[in-house]
Amino acid sequence: MALNVKIMKVFIVYAHPEPQSFNAELLKYSVQVLQEAGHQVQVSDLYAMKWKAVADRDDFPWLDAGERLVYGSASGKAFTEKTQLPEIEAEQQKLRWADFVIFQFPLWWYSMPAILKGWVDRVYALKFAYGVGEHSGEKWGDRFGEGTLKGRKAMVVMTMGGREAHYGPRGVNGYIEDLLWPIQHGIFFYPGMDPLPAFTAFEVGHRAAPEEFEKIKSDYRARLLTLETTPIIQYRSQNGGDYDGQQVLKPGREGKGVTGLAIHQINPRVKSYGGEA
Amino acid sequence: MALNVKIMKVFIVYAHPEPQSFNAELLKYSVQVLQEAGHQVQVSDLYAMKWKAVADRDDFPWLDAGERLVYGSASGKAFTEKTQLPEIEAEQQKLRWADFVIFQFPLWWYSMPAILKGWVDRVYALKFAYGVGEHSGEKWGDRFGEGTLKGRKAMVVMTMGGREAHYGPRGVNGYIEDLLWPIQHGIFFYPGMDPLPAFTAFEVGHRAAPEEFEKIKSDYRARLLTLETTPIIQYRSQNGGDYDGQQVLKPGREGKGVTGLAIHQINPRVKSYGGEA
Repeated sequence: MALNVKIMKVFIVYAHPEPQSFNAELLKYSVQVLQEAGHQVQVSDLYAMKWKAVADRDDFPWLDAGERLVYGSASGKAFTEKTQLPEIEAEQQKLRWADFVIFQFPLWWYSMPAILKGWVDRVYALKFAYGVGEHSGEKWGDRFGEGTLKGRKAMVVMTMGGREAHYGPRGVNGYIEDLLWPIQHGIFFYPGMDPLPAFTAFEVGHRAAPEEFEKIKSDYRARLLTLETTPIIQYRSQNGGDYDGQQVLKPGREGKGVTGLAIHQINPRVKSYGGEA
Repeated sequence: MALNVKIMKVFIVYAHPEPQSFNAELLKYSVQVLQEAGHQVQVSDLYAMKWKAVADRDDFPWLDAGERLVYGSASGKAFTEKTQLPEIEAEQQKLRWADFVIFQFPLWWYSMPAILKGWVDRVYALKFAYGVGEHSGEKWGDRFGEGTLKGRKAMVVMTMGGREAHYGPRGVNGYIEDLLWPIQHGIFFYPGMDPLPAFTAFEVGHRAAPEEFEKIKSDYRARLLTLETTPIIQYRSQNGGDYDGQQVLKPGREGKGVTGLAIHQINPRVKSYGGEA
């Protein structure tokens, strides 16, 4: 175990259907690397757990048969009255336990596999992940930089078939940080977690060469051993003075020349999409 | 039935868990409006169908027990060899049947409910929705404007709790067209469908006033009766000359002053995120 390394509690939410996949190998490897560095690790392997992906009334057995389901309200009631399903509460406990949260998945149709989206839909209950703090007048609650999960960091780790250029600021798939905005800003930052830049493994096909997989593992190892010092994506806090009472970014707050969704970041890595000849 | 109206085949993929919801009322209303205008309508009500959200090896009963699952490859094999599950093939047939496709859902965590994401994950098989056309050298297949579903239009219809300002170009949630990029560009445009701007119902809570719901229905009716003439979001075709051999937008192709993901559009409604005081 290295000296001077802060011991972290790392919670990995993992979504891949195949134990023989490279994604599975990367998960196993990452747990080993983290544990050897002295960190504690918990993994929710959603496929192995047969995680129920669909948010529906079965999540609230106490609802009367004919009663209208308002999923958000019901989740808040269950959270407050401690009648949540044990499987949901267990995942919330893991989030509270963690210092660092990883979502690991293959990019499917420019987003997470459904099983992982369904983990978010069900675990992010009202009063746990949203509807936290004061809501009145110009105060829209503790969210985007504040909230239940404040103090934690989070990171996307994903494999994809495409090439890096396709996901660049001018790539046809859309710039990767914009593609991940709903996750990094919407799912991590909303309840208070600061995102690190995603760890992205491009051109991962099952037919890729062994040395390419080894390179990815080696890169990932380097990232895992520097989680503490890797700069976060510095999204602007909702209640930090940059947004007006309608939650609109005040004029001129973005740095000079900053455009696109990067206006919501302090010191974005990519400021614009410029491609003038 | 109105004269001079082209008869359309409209396929609505609908994902809301509660039959008593406003979303359900909006669906029912829209089917009535469309049918009265002479259009044909099919609905896939995913919750009512108990749609299986999770893409896993159960989708390929012919796979040997110990055989490694590569989901994409297996989906392509099943598609080509006509061994797909009937439920998957039925949805593909509805897509082929349609002139116009609607995804209707409540916005949950800045994206679709898991059950709808799982519909995409499973129905968008290799050789059906991707891996279509020539792949060699600088040709990356028929995608983004070409492909199996070319000639169709598509539209997101969604309800959300937040206010419109929160989803504006400088709103804290991120600009709505950027939030929807993974769906409109990634899921609609990739296999060939041209997206219309989303129909968005803001501030839809179950406690909203009746006249607000009536206003939304009336607005939606107006949209439904002008589907044919509403301008599409004009994404750039991958193989139309705007992208180089690495699928990167060529320098200067975006209009003057166009930034962010809007660089991938011809004549975007919002060109920049400017907020200079």
